[in-house]
Amino acid sequence: MSSSADDPIAALATPAASSALAVIRVSGAGSLELLRPLVGSRWDPASAAGHTIHRCVLVDGKEPVDEVLVAVYRSPRSYTGEDGAEIFCHGSLPVITRLLSTLGRGGFRPAGPGEFTQRAFLNGRMGLTQAEAVNEIVQARTDRARGLALARLAGAIEDRVRRARDSLADLKAGLEVLIDYPDEEQEAGPLIDLAGLREAREALQSLVASYRQGRVFQEGVAVALAGATNCGKSRLFNLLLRQDRAIVSDTHGTTRDWLEATVSLGGIPVRLIDTAGLRPSTDPLESEGIRRTREVMASADIVVYLVDGTRGESGTDGSALAEAGSAVPVIKAWNKTDLAGCRPAPEGFVAISAATGSGREELERRICEAALGGPPKDSTEPLVDSDRQRDLLVRAVAALDRFEAAHAQGTAADLLSVDLADCLDALGEISGAVTSAEILDRMFARFCVGK
Amino acid sequence: MSSSADDPIAALATPAASSALAVIRVSGAGSLELLRPLVGSRWDPASAAGHTIHRCVLVDGKEPVDEVLVAVYRSPRSYTGEDGAEIFCHGSLPVITRLLSTLGRGGFRPAGPGEFTQRAFLNGRMGLTQAEAVNEIVQARTDRARGLALARLAGAIEDRVRRARDSLADLKAGLEVLIDYPDEEQEAGPLIDLAGLREAREALQSLVASYRQGRVFQEGVAVALAGATNCGKSRLFNLLLRQDRAIVSDTHGTTRDWLEATVSLGGIPVRLIDTAGLRPSTDPLESEGIRRTREVMASADIVVYLVDGTRGESGTDGSALAEAGSAVPVIKAWNKTDLAGCRPAPEGFVAISAATGSGREELERRICEAALGGPPKDSTEPLVDSDRQRDLLVRAVAALDRFEAAHAQGTAADLLSVDLADCLDALGEISGAVTSAEILDRMFARFCVGK
Repeated sequence: MSSSADDPIAALATPAASSALAVIRVSGAGSLELLRPLVGSRWDPASAAGHTIHRCVLVDGKEPVDEVLVAVYRSPRSYTGEDGAEIFCHGSLPVITRLLSTLGRGGFRPAGPGEFTQRAFLNGRMGLTQAEAVNEIVQARTDRARGLALARLAGAIEDRVRRARDSLADLKAGLEVLIDYPDEEQEAGPLIDLAGLREAREALQSLVASYRQGRVFQEGVAVALAGATNCGKSRLFNLLLRQDRAIVSDTHGTTRDWLEATVSLGGIPVRLIDTAGLRPSTDPLESEGIRRTREVMASADIVVYLVDGTRGESGTDGSALAEAGSAVPVIKAWNKTDLAGCRPAPEGFVAISAATGSGREELERRICEAALGGPPKDSTEPLVDSDRQRDLLVRAVAALDRFEAAHAQGTAADLLSVDLADCLDALGEISGAVTSAEILDRMFARFCVGK
Repeated sequence: MSSSADDPIAALATPAASSALAVIRVSGAGSLELLRPLVGSRWDPASAAGHTIHRCVLVDGKEPVDEVLVAVYRSPRSYTGEDGAEIFCHGSLPVITRLLSTLGRGGFRPAGPGEFTQRAFLNGRMGLTQAEAVNEIVQARTDRARGLALARLAGAIEDRVRRARDSLADLKAGLEVLIDYPDEEQEAGPLIDLAGLREAREALQSLVASYRQGRVFQEGVAVALAGATNCGKSRLFNLLLRQDRAIVSDTHGTTRDWLEATVSLGGIPVRLIDTAGLRPSTDPLESEGIRRTREVMASADIVVYLVDGTRGESGTDGSALAEAGSAVPVIKAWNKTDLAGCRPAPEGFVAISAATGSGREELERRICEAALGGPPKDSTEPLVDSDRQRDLLVRAVAALDRFEAAHAQGTAADLLSVDLADCLDALGEISGAVTSAEILDRMFARFCVGK
């Protein structure tokens, strides 16, 4: 895939499955002219106005393939910035296959992953953080992740980076005065606006810090429910599931010893894992199950360890808690508080009743805090999800730190300028003002085809 | 679902899976006005021209949900004939879920299966055979089935039925003259145009006869490959598969003793079943496998029975052939013709080599003929796929037969007229000119949602 090409490309933009509608997207120089011989009537796509829709039959030679609607887009007012079209055909696999092969013979190359969005970026239709947000919206698994990605698409991160960049560019302009007129160094001292630099650094550092939460909302976490047999794990599993059945996907434990399901807790996609109950055992088969449970606990992001409050903490509980606690964050829950025989929850335990649901909210809040590494950020703050952006932000902040340390040591303006230039370069790469074709290709390769 | 409603409805028209794009369809009286508060800018869908596309952010209250394109359609120039729109959003499950719930709160009812097409029919945008063809295109599994369904969508069956109906309506008008002026009966005899009636009957009967082939192209057939162990079944299975990998879907024999895959043979979706090899056995486990093979053979539509030509027909072959042949059509194939030790294929066998591929075309031709009950019809002939249409065609032909028999016996015109009226009613129901709400509801319930 060449990053500078504008040759005509085509791809299915909807899932390859039977449904009411499918959408095939085409874009590139001359793409509307290439559609002309595929239209089985006198209508000419190349003479249609942009943002208009036309009904026609598409043909393969003389054979009609499907009755479709064609939406025409005109450069530069299109997603890619190029001339292009969207073909709305019947959502039938033979129709899709035949149309794509007809388009292929008609001069359209199959689009690579993310190639439409890559062109949108290259043609200045969106910045690079917005291009990444396109894919982040598609990949979002909870409504909160969708909202965060949409804010990025609307330019939330782009805006903050631009503001920091503008202020640092002013600082650099001041420095250049010092370099060009070194004799005026004494008087020009105040030209270095350290307060502005620190403000910019804070803004960038806060984006770096948002990365963890951004990732958690987008990627989710794995939470293992563990505890002794009969402590109520399965009941708790079902209680947490009941929250939001919409995004639950069950993997039945046919080949493994545990059940999994994904739920949205506070907007975080949480993969809940119900493990086999722990108990001291000499049965080799059961010991094997327990060994695997310990493995799952160690590989989870968070463990919720359940103790039966009517029985209290056993030796098995104690050693399992000690073992898990050394590997991952553990949330301790004291179950069966609805029963008369339940002892009071000791310090450090969340008191719950998986049977009545009492304590559920507090447990969920604790899971979210453990996942996010603290209370959730204000929902109007943009969260960075992309590791590419995070790495560049880290580089920018490090350059500013070098600048400040060197400045404190009275380093000359021309040397200080190098750190500032590095910072500005990193910020330029974030929004795509400065970036290599190789980085672009690698980034867009993670997109789905048709986007 | 009320058949006469034009209340605003909404549905996802693309599969519910992550992809570049998803399309949500809305239709109904006032639907463009209902969209207005969902648009997060001053653009007003209700004032937009039909067949135009608009970019906007859809909001849920104050919260932005997604950046979308909205295609506006205006009554009567729309799929349903009503005002409506298609919303092109990011192909993200949280976006889809949130938009549908926002639309729901905004006054749109979730559409039932086929409800958009049902409205298209009720508003005179298409006949009933065409409405059925919409679903047939979506359900098509081979390119040939797609082409046949498209011809029906274009009105191929509708046209033939209308032509027969027009000619029979003329005949009925003639009959009515006889009823109104019975005294002129003698001279009016030639008013009964039996030649025209027979021509119409032929056309309708030919559509009835096309039903079997129509069904086979749309629904496909199950073909079991059977034979003794080591006769080359698996090799033949792979040879037939190599044809058209595009629509192959493998079901690995993890829980059953056979392999399945679907291929397109001559445009027919053929489910190929590779059974366990037959041989005399006393091993209970193997006997069980052979028992199941016999079951598969009996439940298939066609059996291809393979004999190893280097060994010739064994007693096991003979009894298996006799057993299968009493239940389903059997095609006998004589394999390994590429080997020097292969005996000449006896009468009634197709000589093939699964290793070299020789004889494959003849075998496939035989499978298609067995599936279609004869050579395939001329590809320009429309094939009936709907059992509803077939039943009505049968009723129409039967009424014509009764008419002719009664006419031959000199029955009076007013009695003859009853049969003709029944025939015309049946034809009217085919295209939907005469039809009940109940029949419509049942028919459209088989559609997918969003269509």
